[in-house]
Amino acid sequence: MSSVAIDATQLTPPAGYRLLASLVVPRPIAWVSTRGQDGSVNLAPFSFFNAVGDQPPTVMISIGRRRGAPKDTLRNIEETGVFVVNVVSQDLSAAMNVTSGDWLYGDSEFARAGLSLAPGEAVDAPRVAQARAALECRLSQVVPVQGTTYTMVLGQVQRFHLAEGLLRPNGTADPAALNALGRLGGDEYAPLGPAFAIPRPVVR
Amino acid sequence: MSSVAIDATQLTPPAGYRLLASLVVPRPIAWVSTRGQDGSVNLAPFSFFNAVGDQPPTVMISIGRRRGAPKDTLRNIEETGVFVVNVVSQDLSAAMNVTSGDWLYGDSEFARAGLSLAPGEAVDAPRVAQARAALECRLSQVVPVQGTTYTMVLGQVQRFHLAEGLLRPNGTADPAALNALGRLGGDEYAPLGPAFAIPRPVVR
Repeated sequence: MSSVAIDATQLTPPAGYRLLASLVVPRPIAWVSTRGQDGSVNLAPFSFFNAVGDQPPTVMISIGRRRGAPKDTLRNIEETGVFVVNVVSQDLSAAMNVTSGDWLYGDSEFARAGLSLAPGEAVDAPRVAQARAALECRLSQVVPVQGTTYTMVLGQVQRFHLAEGLLRPNGTADPAALNALGRLGGDEYAPLGPAFAIPRPVVR
Repeated sequence: MSSVAIDATQLTPPAGYRLLASLVVPRPIAWVSTRGQDGSVNLAPFSFFNAVGDQPPTVMISIGRRRGAPKDTLRNIEETGVFVVNVVSQDLSAAMNVTSGDWLYGDSEFARAGLSLAPGEAVDAPRVAQARAALECRLSQVVPVQGTTYTMVLGQVQRFHLAEGLLRPNGTADPAALNALGRLGGDEYAPLGPAFAIPRPVVR
């Protein structure tokens, strides 16, 4: 296939980000709810996010800086040691986008987006009552991404919350019922098309 | 919303993995090509993968163990310090699945899947000639995921490869032309539905 090669080490911002974020797709969205030490609540979406381990189930969120300062989410997680990852179903995309705004610390994104808080059960952080699934997490690791201004936070899942009817008999969540939104590059998002199964090859 | 809470600390394998992998969706797929010190080539898909930083563009792949031993991909990356992330477009899903098989070390997944190698330009690792995009990476960090058997490898992108016509005037890859496959839970995958833009809210 005829292709174009671009030297990533010679790009000036934001060219590298644009390529990276539009090629590493679709990204899952962690809609992260936290509490500050002052009791304020925060809610913001991150797509440099994924599962990174099992036994115990572990997730990672990589958080950049905003005007040189740590984002409220990182500050709150480091202060309290806990956070909740809420899943963004397609019908919550407008509310999710409101919470991506650059609101002042302590200004509740829940109220701005017309969302309700539900209390955490295992951790002292709220979750989004309207979300079809949520993962209550306890901070397990903080790792700076070398050479960048990003920080990875890792958390071990303490509680899974699933809307009624989401869990299938095989122990997985129904992707059509969850209807999670995928993050693309630029300002773009995409819903999922119909899921299909590919059985793993049997080799040995 | 009425929901079910599941105590993640009390789950026995593979229940935690099934919940985690079906809730953290859609996951991008890193189809990772590497070379061993003996010259053998390896190609395998990983979905505990994402971008984690910018300036320089940085990606992370979390790699589990197979029968207690590091997977060939991790072994090769640690031996050579380089790897290539190829993007799995929907038409390559069958070939990608072949490469997820548990082949012996040194048995080329390229040949098994009917794929061709293209040489790396900036790193000594092959890429998949048929892939519409690829990221040549240099290893920058190896981080064990605490409490699990997984290892995160981070790499800084040295070269982006994009098929002719993929790059749009705004500097991002066209998601419809890339047609990247998303990984769900169990044996499930999903193509992307139509992309839509949501402009960020203007707050201050």
